[in-house]
Amino acid sequence: MRSIENRLKELGIELPTPPPVANYLGTKRSGDLLFVSGRKSELIGLVGGDISENDAYRAARQTVITMLSIIKADIGDLDLIISIVKLQGFIRSAPHFTRQPYVFDGATEVLIEIFGENGRHARTATGVNQLPFGAALQFDVIIRLKRL
Amino acid sequence: MRSIENRLKELGIELPTPPPVANYLGTKRSGDLLFVSGRKSELIGLVGGDISENDAYRAARQTVITMLSIIKADIGDLDLIISIVKLQGFIRSAPHFTRQPYVFDGATEVLIEIFGENGRHARTATGVNQLPFGAALQFDVIIRLKRL
Amino acid sequence: MRSIENRLKELGIELPTPPPVANYLGTKRSGDLLFVSGRKSELIGLVGGDISENDAYRAARQTVITMLSIIKADIGDLDLIISIVKLQGFIRSAPHFTRQPYVFDGATEVLIEIFGENGRHARTATGVNQLPFGAALQFDVIIRLKRL
Repeated sequence: MRSIENRLKELGIELPTPPPVANYLGTKRSGDLLFVSGRKSELIGLVGGDISENDAYRAARQTVITMLSIIKADIGDLDLIISIVKLQGFIRSAPHFTRQPYVFDGATEVLIEIFGENGRHARTATGVNQLPFGAALQFDVIIRLKRL
Repeated sequence: MRSIENRLKELGIELPTPPPVANYLGTKRSGDLLFVSGRKSELIGLVGGDISENDAYRAARQTVITMLSIIKADIGDLDLIISIVKLQGFIRSAPHFTRQPYVFDGATEVLIEIFGENGRHARTATGVNQLPFGAALQFDVIIRLKRL
Repeated sequence: MRSIENRLKELGIELPTPPPVANYLGTKRSGDLLFVSGRKSELIGLVGGDISENDAYRAARQTVITMLSIIKADIGDLDLIISIVKLQGFIRSAPHFTRQPYVFDGATEVLIEIFGENGRHARTATGVNQLPFGAALQFDVIIRLKRL
């Protein structure tokens, strides 16, 4: 019971208070799929410019943890997650920065730590020139849930 | 009957003639989900550069209305829409422009005006340096339809 | 039997050896949908800058063929594909390059050549300033599979 919550404790991961909601939704369910809104990092800056790739990697990890707090607030119980299906990431990239996949690993690895093989996912990591409020990165995700 | 068409009339929204189709499809259905192709704004330019955020907001609203005309041409009846699931937007952004979420609200708000709570959606708003034909913004959307 | 393999032969298309997998998955199935990870082109460079749009068009075609080799390795038989649902593409674009849809046609057209009407899809073609390892373009795709 509550196995994901236990796993988070084992990993020393504490979910933050979910950020306030806006006029759009943090998540929307359609059938067995949960579509999660793009979540930007707290970290502001240009990766490969004023932000190092290691700081961006850590921000990717933290952004996924914040997304989990939003998902938990919406679905009530993280054990309803069957698997992580597709992760999409946008990395705000300095003109010559091309190591988006390394940064994105910060998100991928924490999902596998938490959800095990079910956390392994398809993904797309893209560079962009700008993001909301100058964030260093932004993710969204599609998740498969247990049938209602 | 035809409640969305009535709602559009109440709001004073007239759907334009759907734009001509290309070698790809305007929409593709898979099960209960309708995937809608990226639709660019008529408005050309760089948001936060030669385009103001207010003009981009209005273009976002209009682009969603054009998308609805394409959806209607493909599915025949907008009342087949159960809900708006996920909206993705790319805003062609000047280097220091970071108010993509405000621009994107032009799309989110008109969907809620038209579809009410069913129009509330998950979304991702991203900045990019360039878009097809220099458009100011581009959206795609995933919609849930009534079962066939 | 094996009709897509025959069609590939007719078209003179040979699937390459699928690229090695990483910590994430090349594809992930959820119900009848297969989500395919973003695949970058072998071609490196800036489209409309040091890369011509014709070279990018050819790279788009080849990138889709490489994606098919990954899909085949994962699902075992390309005849399990019912249809191509949604193709998303990011074209690494020089500041004034706005012909992303032409480049993207290299992907769309080969899918229609191989899968016929079932290959016709919804799509979104976006410009970005940078991509993993400096690739000229990157695609991901959602595919509908036969029910298990």
